[in-house]
Amino acid sequence: MAEVRRVGMLTGGGDAPGLNGVIRAVTVKCIEDYGYEVVGIKRGWKGLLAPEEDSVQKLTVDDVRYILDEGGTVLLSSRTNPYKKEGDAEKVVKNMQEFGIDALVAIGGDDTLGVASRLHKDFGVQIVGCPKTIDNDLSGTDTCFGYDTAVSIATEALDRIRTTARSHERILVVEIMGRHAGWITYGAGLAGAANVTLIPEVEPDLDAIADLFKKRAERGEKWGVVAVSEGVTIGEEYITQTAERDEFGHIRLGGIAETLAKELKERTGIDTRHVVLGHLQRGGTPTAYDRILSTRYGIRAAEAVKNGEWGKMVALRGSDIVTVSLEEATGETRTVPEDLYDVLKTFFG
Amino acid sequence: MAEVRRVGMLTGGGDAPGLNGVIRAVTVKCIEDYGYEVVGIKRGWKGLLAPEEDSVQKLTVDDVRYILDEGGTVLLSSRTNPYKKEGDAEKVVKNMQEFGIDALVAIGGDDTLGVASRLHKDFGVQIVGCPKTIDNDLSGTDTCFGYDTAVSIATEALDRIRTTARSHERILVVEIMGRHAGWITYGAGLAGAANVTLIPEVEPDLDAIADLFKKRAERGEKWGVVAVSEGVTIGEEYITQTAERDEFGHIRLGGIAETLAKELKERTGIDTRHVVLGHLQRGGTPTAYDRILSTRYGIRAAEAVKNGEWGKMVALRGSDIVTVSLEEATGETRTVPEDLYDVLKTFFG
Amino acid sequence: MAEVRRVGMLTGGGDAPGLNGVIRAVTVKCIEDYGYEVVGIKRGWKGLLAPEEDSVQKLTVDDVRYILDEGGTVLLSSRTNPYKKEGDAEKVVKNMQEFGIDALVAIGGDDTLGVASRLHKDFGVQIVGCPKTIDNDLSGTDTCFGYDTAVSIATEALDRIRTTARSHERILVVEIMGRHAGWITYGAGLAGAANVTLIPEVEPDLDAIADLFKKRAERGEKWGVVAVSEGVTIGEEYITQTAERDEFGHIRLGGIAETLAKELKERTGIDTRHVVLGHLQRGGTPTAYDRILSTRYGIRAAEAVKNGEWGKMVALRGSDIVTVSLEEATGETRTVPEDLYDVLKTFFG
Amino acid sequence: MAEVRRVGMLTGGGDAPGLNGVIRAVTVKCIEDYGYEVVGIKRGWKGLLAPEEDSVQKLTVDDVRYILDEGGTVLLSSRTNPYKKEGDAEKVVKNMQEFGIDALVAIGGDDTLGVASRLHKDFGVQIVGCPKTIDNDLSGTDTCFGYDTAVSIATEALDRIRTTARSHERILVVEIMGRHAGWITYGAGLAGAANVTLIPEVEPDLDAIADLFKKRAERGEKWGVVAVSEGVTIGEEYITQTAERDEFGHIRLGGIAETLAKELKERTGIDTRHVVLGHLQRGGTPTAYDRILSTRYGIRAAEAVKNGEWGKMVALRGSDIVTVSLEEATGETRTVPEDLYDVLKTFFG
Repeated sequence: MAEVRRVGMLTGGGDAPGLNGVIRAVTVKCIEDYGYEVVGIKRGWKGLLAPEEDSVQKLTVDDVRYILDEGGTVLLSSRTNPYKKEGDAEKVVKNMQEFGIDALVAIGGDDTLGVASRLHKDFGVQIVGCPKTIDNDLSGTDTCFGYDTAVSIATEALDRIRTTARSHERILVVEIMGRHAGWITYGAGLAGAANVTLIPEVEPDLDAIADLFKKRAERGEKWGVVAVSEGVTIGEEYITQTAERDEFGHIRLGGIAETLAKELKERTGIDTRHVVLGHLQRGGTPTAYDRILSTRYGIRAAEAVKNGEWGKMVALRGSDIVTVSLEEATGETRTVPEDLYDVLKTFFG
Repeated sequence: MAEVRRVGMLTGGGDAPGLNGVIRAVTVKCIEDYGYEVVGIKRGWKGLLAPEEDSVQKLTVDDVRYILDEGGTVLLSSRTNPYKKEGDAEKVVKNMQEFGIDALVAIGGDDTLGVASRLHKDFGVQIVGCPKTIDNDLSGTDTCFGYDTAVSIATEALDRIRTTARSHERILVVEIMGRHAGWITYGAGLAGAANVTLIPEVEPDLDAIADLFKKRAERGEKWGVVAVSEGVTIGEEYITQTAERDEFGHIRLGGIAETLAKELKERTGIDTRHVVLGHLQRGGTPTAYDRILSTRYGIRAAEAVKNGEWGKMVALRGSDIVTVSLEEATGETRTVPEDLYDVLKTFFG
Repeated sequence: MAEVRRVGMLTGGGDAPGLNGVIRAVTVKCIEDYGYEVVGIKRGWKGLLAPEEDSVQKLTVDDVRYILDEGGTVLLSSRTNPYKKEGDAEKVVKNMQEFGIDALVAIGGDDTLGVASRLHKDFGVQIVGCPKTIDNDLSGTDTCFGYDTAVSIATEALDRIRTTARSHERILVVEIMGRHAGWITYGAGLAGAANVTLIPEVEPDLDAIADLFKKRAERGEKWGVVAVSEGVTIGEEYITQTAERDEFGHIRLGGIAETLAKELKERTGIDTRHVVLGHLQRGGTPTAYDRILSTRYGIRAAEAVKNGEWGKMVALRGSDIVTVSLEEATGETRTVPEDLYDVLKTFFG
Repeated sequence: MAEVRRVGMLTGGGDAPGLNGVIRAVTVKCIEDYGYEVVGIKRGWKGLLAPEEDSVQKLTVDDVRYILDEGGTVLLSSRTNPYKKEGDAEKVVKNMQEFGIDALVAIGGDDTLGVASRLHKDFGVQIVGCPKTIDNDLSGTDTCFGYDTAVSIATEALDRIRTTARSHERILVVEIMGRHAGWITYGAGLAGAANVTLIPEVEPDLDAIADLFKKRAERGEKWGVVAVSEGVTIGEEYITQTAERDEFGHIRLGGIAETLAKELKERTGIDTRHVVLGHLQRGGTPTAYDRILSTRYGIRAAEAVKNGEWGKMVALRGSDIVTVSLEEATGETRTVPEDLYDVLKTFFG
């Protein structure tokens, strides 16, 4: 193992509140406790593959002291993957050497960490991973920073929307992040007391949902809130039958929330509307929970560098931060298990 | 003037945070200080035009004591207008008499208050109006409850979105309420430090906006946030040239934010996304400002009933709550004046 | 085991955001899935020891459907302990029988659950416990609802206070809950980026803290924020030497924050002030995290009733909700371990 | 009038959320629209009276673009008053000349603006004032930035505290800013639905307040929330009769909230507690309202510099930002008028 003097750090993939917490903790721990130099690499792997003038810059404790409550990532991000094109991985390794980077902390999701794992395996790069998934779907860790913030934002949205749904006697369908795993929708639907919550893991039964709202209407509650993951799909036959044409004669198609709203209106006769939370869920100051978790990740990642735990990734197991093999930790999507969804179904109605 | 013993109250049109503040204040003041009985009428004019079993119910101080921080309206709302069909206004007047309602407090926007004004004029109904416009576009009052809350929500959204736009080096276009008047977008764009803010009052110059973002990119800020009112329009030629076809071959058309995002991407080469805040802006607990304003409105409305100021509407003038003629106060849309928009333009860039 | 038809439920001790989440989940699950009747018992053990007219009341699904986002407890609370006076425990058991309560869900801290454990042991009462500790110091569970909310509130306070401390070049000392365990202060001090965080588990070194602030001042940062648990103690010699006399000649003594502020001022020459968060940390709407955890607790408690897991308590272990023996789970205070406090110390300065 | 090339700006007195909004607007407007140079003066008048190395620094648009949502003041503040010591005012004027500052924007309260007024009158300094009073008690303007934020924070505190007061059947007394004028307490007490609100303008009747809580208790509401300004005083006889002695035998005296809590407990028999919000009310991100108002103030102040409106202060009148004479605008405290307090009293109970 080569001695570590200069540690590089990068963030890749979609941003998640808490990234700056990791960056801050790695920087402070490496500098203050271990005497390393720390350099920030801009725009994920892109900053090492095709470095521009600002791509590699020294980070000081003063640079990061008060970034804990900032959303996004001060290192910027990209989706560049050096294993997509022959020869790119070699370039990354060569540039690391040219910048004198002895060890690398790579913060990102499955894609970013997959690259990290291969760089370690293929070239012996001294690398430590830190998981980042706002969707909470990485199999190698119990949970991840960003998730709690996203659930909080979506929950607050459901809280707000409930009052307007009730006042106007409408059904409001709220589209929440989650293409393959329904974790954010699950959390927000539970915490935000949605009347129905739909996740990609379970096929929705539109007739049953319509019945539920009809029953609510019968007992005087002619309104409701539906939380639905963006990744939920319903059969194509539903889509065409309610298509509307705009002023140019084109069929107007929307996402799942819009489609679902139309279907529920048709089946229940209750006025329905939809909202898509979208990018609102990504940005902004992290919750206290995410600040703490990201800080603990960062501290442990710095320790892993000190210990030479190359090819490992920090992870939460119960209440502990541990390290696990990057290779084993990535590649699988963790979905919402049936028993948790059952908890939610208790409150449908 | 007929003696007042029982006061009715209703809310009409779109809901706005603060409605419950008015309801609470009218109820408490009328009962505790004047000894009136107060009845709540459900679903706006609909509750008087076609009363159902639950349409007219007594309100007590205990019913309303702690509703000040609740969004929506405990009296529910509708867009029913008894002047749309011959004979309906008469039915409303007759039902008021049958329910023994001597005076009416009507809380709503231009439509609801227009009905109130005519009922007073045509039938001598003892009526007092309270303005409600989340859009801040009623000409009869300086501002109205609900507006501050809507601006606060949209501002927080812009705050959040800025960090993700910057981290991913994207332009994010945020669609904010306001079909005819740009007040909410104006307030949020200013408070949320949007790089560009577009309102219906001023035609947007897409080339100038694109230039602005190109200049930002040249100085290293390859990202930005645009706040745009839903009512902003751009020429049809823009729309067709960037149309995308979905998997069914249909042209996918969206609102102004989506269209604008595509146009800016084409003109700047910077990745762009959009978010539509929609119903998020309506619901939820009112800000302290809106709780205070709505309470002051409600107190003054009760005083107006006591004083027999029929055909009048409460209004804010400077720091004072006054009453103005319903007839004169309604019918005109107040838009964002040029000098205020100029303040905003100082910060474009 | 006696068949269960009517389930009683009570909350004891200090309130914690999330109590209503447990109440709601137990009620809905017991009624909808198991067909039990559920009765709420007011004011903890007091409601069974000395029942008043309103002490035992039926709970319906409609009663609890929308209480998830409300702070406090709809069942009210008290600190009554029927094991403090001879014969009281027997009265509780007798009253349970008179009210026809076959099984009891007791939600509370060490004191409440200790009673539950003994009632089960001494009289065979069919009882299930649910832990509640805003202080996060119950040894039987990984964490508890209320804690995340308290940390969030205190973190937001530290965020706010930082800007005013910096603008006025002051040290601000913030007193946070925690008499015996420093968990809330630990979490908030970490998430709120306090310059120093003090917890009851570790004796503070005032000279070292003063030195830290002097060093900050030397590099131009003549300000700072200290997070301190209410339970932190410093030697009496400190107290007297800085005592001030008020206009009546009495010595003015305060809590730890006030005392610490005076000491730091004397040692550093920097203007210092203090704030005591106090009851602010208890109330208000729970975070999404606490809503989810409390709901999962409630569901599992209802299942425990169904399963006849008497004398057990629900608990979080890793990501799972399990049941553990009430007897073993209570009686020990869980404090902040040294390695976690070390994470925090990395950021002192 | 000397031509303006370089504009200085300073902030004095207690900080108020929104100060950075003024600083940003003055800087951007002066540079972008008028081509002035802008320099920030650190620590109010102290920065001109006894300048240190960092006291006068150039401000660029980039320095201020994203400070709108930050609490505090990037220019720091002090309470230095150059009219307290002979010869100091002359030093300020001389230093202004040495720094080449042709015009000065002074942002502050009565004290800071009083100095500004005299410097203009005594030495012809080209000065424009901007009012800052979190207490809302400056007579020259309808309202001021910072006030809305302070009211919002205190309102949220009352919202939170209500749930814990109710759950524990306690009276909670909350001490809110306001030594001479009760504006913040007035706003928060109204918006936060306090059961009783006390302001310095009106002497409290403790027996009447106790009766109110006794009546509440009789109808089953054995709890309540009192909002009280720090400046409220009650007769000394109350204080001594409930004095408690600590473990050292010293009498323990607190502020008005603590004293009031003891008195109410003695008179009602209901458990009472108190909270002092203190510095919490000053810091943190400004509300959208305060961001907008402070921006409008800053723009108008820059215009006043351009127009040579020396010796004037920007002010809000109705919906308009105007300028008024500094001399006339300062020196008087604006208190809560009786009719506004009457609105509040309607809801006592």
